[in-house]
Amino acid sequence: MSKFLDGKNCPNMPWEDKPDGYELPVWRYSKNPITKRPYSKTIDRVMNSSIVPFNGEFIGVFRCDNHSNRSALYVGHSKDGVNIVMEDEPIKILDSEGNIVSPWGKFDPRIAKIGEEYYVTFCDYCIDEVTTAIAKTKDFKTFYRFDNPFTPNYRNGVFFPRKFGDFYKILLRPCDAGNSNFGNIYVTQSKDMEYFGKSKMVAHAGFSGWNWTKIGPGPTPIEIDEGWLIIIHGVINTCAGYIYSMGAIIVDHDDPSKVLYKCEPALLWPTEQYETTGFTNNVVFPTAVLTDAKTGRMAIYYGAADAYTSLAFTTIDELVDYIKKNSK
Amino acid sequence: MSKFLDGKNCPNMPWEDKPDGYELPVWRYSKNPITKRPYSKTIDRVMNSSIVPFNGEFIGVFRCDNHSNRSALYVGHSKDGVNIVMEDEPIKILDSEGNIVSPWGKFDPRIAKIGEEYYVTFCDYCIDEVTTAIAKTKDFKTFYRFDNPFTPNYRNGVFFPRKFGDFYKILLRPCDAGNSNFGNIYVTQSKDMEYFGKSKMVAHAGFSGWNWTKIGPGPTPIEIDEGWLIIIHGVINTCAGYIYSMGAIIVDHDDPSKVLYKCEPALLWPTEQYETTGFTNNVVFPTAVLTDAKTGRMAIYYGAADAYTSLAFTTIDELVDYIKKNSK
Amino acid sequence: MSKFLDGKNCPNMPWEDKPDGYELPVWRYSKNPITKRPYSKTIDRVMNSSIVPFNGEFIGVFRCDNHSNRSALYVGHSKDGVNIVMEDEPIKILDSEGNIVSPWGKFDPRIAKIGEEYYVTFCDYCIDEVTTAIAKTKDFKTFYRFDNPFTPNYRNGVFFPRKFGDFYKILLRPCDAGNSNFGNIYVTQSKDMEYFGKSKMVAHAGFSGWNWTKIGPGPTPIEIDEGWLIIIHGVINTCAGYIYSMGAIIVDHDDPSKVLYKCEPALLWPTEQYETTGFTNNVVFPTAVLTDAKTGRMAIYYGAADAYTSLAFTTIDELVDYIKKNSK
Amino acid sequence: MSKFLDGKNCPNMPWEDKPDGYELPVWRYSKNPITKRPYSKTIDRVMNSSIVPFNGEFIGVFRCDNHSNRSALYVGHSKDGVNIVMEDEPIKILDSEGNIVSPWGKFDPRIAKIGEEYYVTFCDYCIDEVTTAIAKTKDFKTFYRFDNPFTPNYRNGVFFPRKFGDFYKILLRPCDAGNSNFGNIYVTQSKDMEYFGKSKMVAHAGFSGWNWTKIGPGPTPIEIDEGWLIIIHGVINTCAGYIYSMGAIIVDHDDPSKVLYKCEPALLWPTEQYETTGFTNNVVFPTAVLTDAKTGRMAIYYGAADAYTSLAFTTIDELVDYIKKNSK
Amino acid sequence: MSKFLDGKNCPNMPWEDKPDGYELPVWRYSKNPITKRPYSKTIDRVMNSSIVPFNGEFIGVFRCDNHSNRSALYVGHSKDGVNIVMEDEPIKILDSEGNIVSPWGKFDPRIAKIGEEYYVTFCDYCIDEVTTAIAKTKDFKTFYRFDNPFTPNYRNGVFFPRKFGDFYKILLRPCDAGNSNFGNIYVTQSKDMEYFGKSKMVAHAGFSGWNWTKIGPGPTPIEIDEGWLIIIHGVINTCAGYIYSMGAIIVDHDDPSKVLYKCEPALLWPTEQYETTGFTNNVVFPTAVLTDAKTGRMAIYYGAADAYTSLAFTTIDELVDYIKKNSK
Amino acid sequence: MSKFLDGKNCPNMPWEDKPDGYELPVWRYSKNPITKRPYSKTIDRVMNSSIVPFNGEFIGVFRCDNHSNRSALYVGHSKDGVNIVMEDEPIKILDSEGNIVSPWGKFDPRIAKIGEEYYVTFCDYCIDEVTTAIAKTKDFKTFYRFDNPFTPNYRNGVFFPRKFGDFYKILLRPCDAGNSNFGNIYVTQSKDMEYFGKSKMVAHAGFSGWNWTKIGPGPTPIEIDEGWLIIIHGVINTCAGYIYSMGAIIVDHDDPSKVLYKCEPALLWPTEQYETTGFTNNVVFPTAVLTDAKTGRMAIYYGAADAYTSLAFTTIDELVDYIKKNSK
Repeated sequence: MSKFLDGKNCPNMPWEDKPDGYELPVWRYSKNPITKRPYSKTIDRVMNSSIVPFNGEFIGVFRCDNHSNRSALYVGHSKDGVNIVMEDEPIKILDSEGNIVSPWGKFDPRIAKIGEEYYVTFCDYCIDEVTTAIAKTKDFKTFYRFDNPFTPNYRNGVFFPRKFGDFYKILLRPCDAGNSNFGNIYVTQSKDMEYFGKSKMVAHAGFSGWNWTKIGPGPTPIEIDEGWLIIIHGVINTCAGYIYSMGAIIVDHDDPSKVLYKCEPALLWPTEQYETTGFTNNVVFPTAVLTDAKTGRMAIYYGAADAYTSLAFTTIDELVDYIKKNSK
Repeated sequence: MSKFLDGKNCPNMPWEDKPDGYELPVWRYSKNPITKRPYSKTIDRVMNSSIVPFNGEFIGVFRCDNHSNRSALYVGHSKDGVNIVMEDEPIKILDSEGNIVSPWGKFDPRIAKIGEEYYVTFCDYCIDEVTTAIAKTKDFKTFYRFDNPFTPNYRNGVFFPRKFGDFYKILLRPCDAGNSNFGNIYVTQSKDMEYFGKSKMVAHAGFSGWNWTKIGPGPTPIEIDEGWLIIIHGVINTCAGYIYSMGAIIVDHDDPSKVLYKCEPALLWPTEQYETTGFTNNVVFPTAVLTDAKTGRMAIYYGAADAYTSLAFTTIDELVDYIKKNSK
Repeated sequence: MSKFLDGKNCPNMPWEDKPDGYELPVWRYSKNPITKRPYSKTIDRVMNSSIVPFNGEFIGVFRCDNHSNRSALYVGHSKDGVNIVMEDEPIKILDSEGNIVSPWGKFDPRIAKIGEEYYVTFCDYCIDEVTTAIAKTKDFKTFYRFDNPFTPNYRNGVFFPRKFGDFYKILLRPCDAGNSNFGNIYVTQSKDMEYFGKSKMVAHAGFSGWNWTKIGPGPTPIEIDEGWLIIIHGVINTCAGYIYSMGAIIVDHDDPSKVLYKCEPALLWPTEQYETTGFTNNVVFPTAVLTDAKTGRMAIYYGAADAYTSLAFTTIDELVDYIKKNSK
Repeated sequence: MSKFLDGKNCPNMPWEDKPDGYELPVWRYSKNPITKRPYSKTIDRVMNSSIVPFNGEFIGVFRCDNHSNRSALYVGHSKDGVNIVMEDEPIKILDSEGNIVSPWGKFDPRIAKIGEEYYVTFCDYCIDEVTTAIAKTKDFKTFYRFDNPFTPNYRNGVFFPRKFGDFYKILLRPCDAGNSNFGNIYVTQSKDMEYFGKSKMVAHAGFSGWNWTKIGPGPTPIEIDEGWLIIIHGVINTCAGYIYSMGAIIVDHDDPSKVLYKCEPALLWPTEQYETTGFTNNVVFPTAVLTDAKTGRMAIYYGAADAYTSLAFTTIDELVDYIKKNSK
Repeated sequence: MSKFLDGKNCPNMPWEDKPDGYELPVWRYSKNPITKRPYSKTIDRVMNSSIVPFNGEFIGVFRCDNHSNRSALYVGHSKDGVNIVMEDEPIKILDSEGNIVSPWGKFDPRIAKIGEEYYVTFCDYCIDEVTTAIAKTKDFKTFYRFDNPFTPNYRNGVFFPRKFGDFYKILLRPCDAGNSNFGNIYVTQSKDMEYFGKSKMVAHAGFSGWNWTKIGPGPTPIEIDEGWLIIIHGVINTCAGYIYSMGAIIVDHDDPSKVLYKCEPALLWPTEQYETTGFTNNVVFPTAVLTDAKTGRMAIYYGAADAYTSLAFTTIDELVDYIKKNSK
Repeated sequence: MSKFLDGKNCPNMPWEDKPDGYELPVWRYSKNPITKRPYSKTIDRVMNSSIVPFNGEFIGVFRCDNHSNRSALYVGHSKDGVNIVMEDEPIKILDSEGNIVSPWGKFDPRIAKIGEEYYVTFCDYCIDEVTTAIAKTKDFKTFYRFDNPFTPNYRNGVFFPRKFGDFYKILLRPCDAGNSNFGNIYVTQSKDMEYFGKSKMVAHAGFSGWNWTKIGPGPTPIEIDEGWLIIIHGVINTCAGYIYSMGAIIVDHDDPSKVLYKCEPALLWPTEQYETTGFTNNVVFPTAVLTDAKTGRMAIYYGAADAYTSLAFTTIDELVDYIKKNSK
């Protein structure tokens, strides 16, 4: 049996038992989606967001697209991980000189707790084009953004939640300036979150039929006995456009470019109406996971159709067993 | 408080109060869509159509696509603006020499009453390619089409409902021969509806996130205290194709190329199933408005997913207030 | 009144009377889709498949896409034509040297009974690219595949269910290596199912508005008094991708390149949710028909949204009458 | 024998006899190109320009692209029609309010003398996109531009050199906002050069193998016994991009939408190095013709490879005879 | 040392010794191209054609594109293989019922002498789209075309010049309806030139840097000691369009799907002006070879830039030695 | 008068005075190109390469594409900077563990001398896709490559030739995996050539008509009084593909993201035959400059048509004066 190496419990995380007769390893929350559309007078949709345990409750950084179709990041609070109360104003980000940065034009955040700091990575229209930005916070009140660690064009920067010796490591999906029709996962490292190098390839799109076009990292990797469990998204192109699905790989504890398992099947396809129709149809886009070491439970947050936030569940045992049995 | 300058009342127009708790300025009719699919043995879908008050009831020119996917225009009658009875045969159009013109290959009609005449503009496969055609009628029994006022390729020709001195003015969206990936709104003018010139730019796509790819004029402009209220459609391109939404601008009374307000938020996105799935998915396409001067009520008719006719409501006060507060 | 020339009865075939007030000639089964998604622990979706009467019950070859998005063919059994029990393992195909062929990478099968043999045609990733493959069986336990009768790139190979003198005849839709944006129906012939030639054009895409982009043959043609009834699929391209609909043509008894009727209207568009949203949105793709000579009933099996198997019904009288009245 | 109906002689126009053994009806000037590249310290290339007899010499409006790849119009003077002296500064254009218009962003001018005025039509980045603009002059010192007679997107506006009753007539090629892959010739008319309407189709691309992709009008039409001789360009797309060639049609004296002859062969393909390589490779783009009534000589000016101005010769007899013999 | 297995001498074939200091195995004729442009009053260009020894002289089938950019086949005669005299009228082809077939819309012919008959394969706009057609002749006066052995879309059908047991074998490059961006070589076989089957893959594009996009068979294969020498074309895509180069493979005597050598280097790139500029720039397209058994000389005919016919030379020893040394 | 801040003389660098009457600031070498095609029995073309003074002569790293169209780097030697003798074998590169790296799949090298080391940057098919690689050498015999400082996809990495405090700075052009249709210049920095960060935008494509599509850095920047002179390439897209031209900008001494001058005109367009036709037509691609402090002379090496190495000349005075006068 596999277990979470962080050993942290989270008894109040969202949970729902697997439906009777359901045979697959990941199942949806019966009350999905957990955010409605329109979300509020100012916000049209909440999706592709991240959440972590914080002071016995939950806190997150959420992508909220307003009625002008502009993306901003908001801090949201939740007691149960399901009902989320967004703050009134978008996130407060300071640049390295202490100036307030516009919260707009930012999207698809991930949060990694490394030591006592929370590192938020997100897509940002800085440096003339979209690329990955990094900000850190301790209190989710003020976020300090690093100075352009990356040139264009990156998406889906996702930190590992601990250092490797002196180094932080981050997963990245290089792309082009638009809806790029290619996408592979790379890892690069840094001592200071300012200068990155020694890049390596992790996994190439096309290792299974549901990710023929591109793959990218999803939530912050989870360290388990076998290595790092990385939930990913994969994309194929059809006669009716792209389909984004959820999958998983497991990579080596010390060298994430060593892939131990690539799960052949997709873990979740867009099949429910809130996944197949919304803003961008046919999108299941995982971006956060809550875990409970005691029970092995996992609650996976994913964006649905670029329009909603949704939840799916599994356990470490069931998921890792499935990945191992279904890898070549 | 804003008001409709035409001062005309329409007490029997469709209406439904805003749902409790709904915060946005435009709300859908709870019994949408108002036309079913298949519509009849011969007609598959009714959409992107126009309706006006007429002899105490309502009359309209409707785009009806048959089961061979060919578009024709039909005259439809309604007592309440919701239940529409289509005539058995398509519209009767005569050309300038008195010959009957085929009603087929015509689509997306608008109606403007100018003086005592009703001017219907529509897309027409004449002159070798699609362009905007103009026909006039007094009785909705016979329509007289003008001789090719335009070369290819125009879509969404929409007249202002009164003359400007000696001139009629029409909004147009130049395009290419296919599903063009560009589209801006221009105005051009004519003394006789036969010769047009002195064109000017009105508004360029991309003034907000929901109209990055193209914009075009929707229903006949409505004159209010502030100027002309023009409800528009806007389009963005996603990984799953185009999304058509509804928005609004307000332009100057005398010179429609002077834009006073461009409402940043979209007024209605495709979110209901009859808007997100149908024939062309993700289409909200406004083409007609009924107004009541006394109450300030507005009933907006829009095509949904190129498959259905739907209704949305607002009031002049609520809408104009929202536009003003949300323009830069 | 038209009738099926094979004279065979099939009293236990699926059937449901036309709903009251429904005016069109083909109506859906009220319990559609007849296969759910996910279908099982290993199979995600069942679609675009074929079924025939066999020993008083029904048997078929089914396209089953697994959770890795790979296609395989499975034999399925059914007593009522609605509830289908798939075998545990994919189909067993032998090549001409008696070696077992992988059942994977095969899709969209059709079955034609010619004499006492069942000929299954399907798309196959053989000979470096996808093309049409042919296999025969008597018992649905072992299938014998012929040696590459075709070079790339063909889709939708569909045999006529009897010989024409010494010749077998097959319908084909040549295409390119991807989601080709062109597609017409050709017929070619063979004495031995190994060497094909004397090709002729049958029908060109674009004979009606719903098949502007491509057409291809659907189920095995059905011989009736008038000739061969060929149910087809047709495709148009929209702002939101391709739409696959169902239609029909009737061709000459002796020379299938002589088209007698091309039904202008589509017989079934994607309008139900299981057709408009699934894997590839907006797909109605007919691949099999069961017929009953006594009653003239027809049960049409079609793939819905590349995600489900569905059923529609009509009668030979109603359908042929409609085709004749609606052809030019 | 055909003759020029304007009856004007031009004894000093450029001329060179047909080379011995050359069999085709149009031959190149042996000293082509007549403008070099770089043309001057400020101008990189001169091409796609127009020239007319003026006060016993020649004067023209020339497209000059500078070293920043920006297009401007210049007036040029020539005694022999071959050696052209460009003025130091670009053309002076006034708008309808007497303001000076920037000479930049304008290209591909044509000149038509109608009565005593010279009407220059050209592509102009006015009204937000490129479209056809009209300016008139008597002295080639000041040009008066009309107010936006056209919305976007037109190219190749070419006036007929006389009125038709009360009407001016202009040929146009509607297009899209880029290097459009379609293009047909239309004619529209106006009483005042401000309002245009009663459009008609003249000729559709694809009437011969060299114009499969698009056609557009070239120089000002020339009235001859048979009707109007219109030299055109035609375009085909190849594995190495577009090829622009020269061709001709003859249309009716009174109704230019009546095409009397469409010359099947191209008159000149890009074959010389200054035509096949330059800026845009493979372009022969005719824009002006000088004629001599006495001798029937014609000197055709054409842009070569978007880089040079070149000359070709023919006679009215030889050309019209060839067109007639080679039309269907 | 390798030799030609047909043992036939051809002392009057074109020849020129290798230039001093030239190091590569294939060298151009110093008087290239051997056909001029325009070729004649009716023919603009001659290219992509085939030639064989015949009655002590040479005869060929030539692709001649006229000034309307239409392709036709012509028979041409030559005493020296360099100076070619085209017949006045295009080729006379009869169909299976003895009707004369239009010589137009046919292109890129190859000739294979099998037994005492000459089999000409060419691209033909028959059966609604372009595909490979086959005609035979003994006298080059009348050609008898077979009835549609192939459906669309094939290019570059090239017969082996002898039977394999009872079977003729032909190389084919399946493609799409346009300038397809893929292309591999397949072989298929027939007893009667009417019915083809048992297809196999021969070689896939991308085996070297000059053929990344597609490859296709060139001249009729030449049997040598090692097997069949097949000269091919290969294509790569660049920022300025496709580049067609010449290369070679050697396949097994009995089973041409067994590739023995794939020559890594290209044998000839477009570098001379008549190859880099013409109609379609950057095309070297080999279609015929003359050989002399005594000396081992080879004269390779190739189309240059879709505008000219050109010649290159090598010897069997030099070429085969180079292929062997440069294959993996 | 401007001067080179490095103060180094290079009396034997190539030079040719400006031709009489030539008015533009950069002129071509009269004996261009300086490398022929085919270059040798193994090498087809030499282009896009770099050269520096070394021990009183010149040495360089050259991109040599072989006859299989594969790129490798070679060291070349020259006494006069014009006649270059390539070594027999490609460059010897060691990775960080001392293993020999394949010299293939590398292209477009630049050389910057920083201190006593020569840093070579080049495009490299490492880490699964092309990106920028860095190697250093002192003797041009062994090159030591750093471990993947960059993820995909970068092109045109160009170092500044001195450190800025503790930091090396490098110019980069992020791109996609193919012939990307976008390209801007960024600068990023590193203390160790292993970890890069603090990226900034330098210049965006589209500042003039010749670089509408993309721009990228050319040779190693040259420090002059005004700042850093950076010769760049710029690209526009035409109906016949991309055109690569040469231009220049000047940026701040201390902060290269501060652009002082952007020269509006292009400095050199493809106009000579060796630039307009070759492998990729229409390419002028500057990659190296030799300078002489005493005379202010500059010899610019550029790749022509991806097929040849060529030379152009100017002086610091003439060039900088021209840039200043032609910047906005």
